Amino acid sequence: MGTAFARQIMETKPNQQARVIWLTGLPCSGKTTIGVGLEQKLISNGFLVRMLDGDVTRKGICSDLGFSGADRNENIRRIAEISKLFAESGIITINAFITPTEKLRNMARDIIGSDYFINVYVNAPLNLCEQRDIKGMYKKARNGEIKEFTGVSAPFEPPLEAAIEINTSFSDPDQSIHKLFEYILPLITVYK
Amino acid sequence: MGTAFARQIMETKPNQQARVIWLTGLPCSGKTTIGVGLEQKLISNGFLVRMLDGDVTRKGICSDLGFSGADRNENIRRIAEISKLFAESGIITINAFITPTEKLRNMARDIIGSDYFINVYVNAPLNLCEQRDIKGMYKKARNGEIKEFTGVSAPFEPPLEAAIEINTSFSDPDQSIHKLFEYILPLITVYK
Repeated sequence: MGTAFARQIMETKPNQQARVIWLTGLPCSGKTTIGVGLEQKLISNGFLVRMLDGDVTRKGICSDLGFSGADRNENIRRIAEISKLFAESGIITINAFITPTEKLRNMARDIIGSDYFINVYVNAPLNLCEQRDIKGMYKKARNGEIKEFTGVSAPFEPPLEAAIEINTSFSDPDQSIHKLFEYILPLITVYK
Repeated sequence: MGTAFARQIMETKPNQQARVIWLTGLPCSGKTTIGVGLEQKLISNGFLVRMLDGDVTRKGICSDLGFSGADRNENIRRIAEISKLFAESGIITINAFITPTEKLRNMARDIIGSDYFINVYVNAPLNLCEQRDIKGMYKKARNGEIKEFTGVSAPFEPPLEAAIEINTSFSDPDQSIHKLFEYILPLITVYK
């Protein structure tokens, strides 16, 4: 399954190698900004790419899940399975999810397969992320309104084996996106 | 989300309108045969299409689910959500799942949206399906080795609002596939 579809994509986009670009990092570290920027850059370079993030999955496929440890685990498992379906179909996905632990990232890698999985560490210091606090979530976590919030009341383990680290505290988004794009490009390009 | 991707597909396949072609019917009624045949025919006519069936979903995204009523419900819900992701991305899916009740089919329709959802009733009499018994499941159900098996120990409600019925008892597979293809073609074609 997927083979016929992948062949179609290959015929349409003969230079494309499917990958799952998995962005991990603290809340407000810049995952979505980098992800959306990368998506646009890849599209304008002719790649077929689809972004997945919590806004999509929490309302749909994972709408039955809460934020307990077990549910967060299951959330990541399903996203990994969906990414695999897209990857098998020849389509690149960009996944922006906190994915705070080695265990979760390893599970995603195991499901998707090491050949497809590219782990990107979007890194910014906690105090900077908290300063950004785009949706006011850090504030709520500090007030105790949100429990087990990554960075405040739940741990974030920096990835040990990220393919690349994008530090969003030292450069503007365009520079970060450009750096990631330059890294990704040879990995999704089929040279003939 | 998905908009940029859909635009890409539109640019690549400007004549394609995404739909979810949902095949419902008894075990061994011919859903997979018809589905695979339709997939091949659509591909050879230049459409981007992906088939989803139990072989794919039960091993992956739904590997945590069993065959209780609640789990079957959840299985169909997730498949509907995944189909929606593909449809939003401009890609046609062909879904071959028993989907035995009006309630389940209505849930799928509600998730996917009536504009995308095409319900196809793959119909053959029970005794013929049981005679085919490709995987020996009917036999196991009759022996009590499988419980709540659709057609034997669990009900199949013929769909009340199927867009089209394909009767696989009176025609050979090629004729059935051709009939469905002729029906689907105008629904997935964008005339300009």
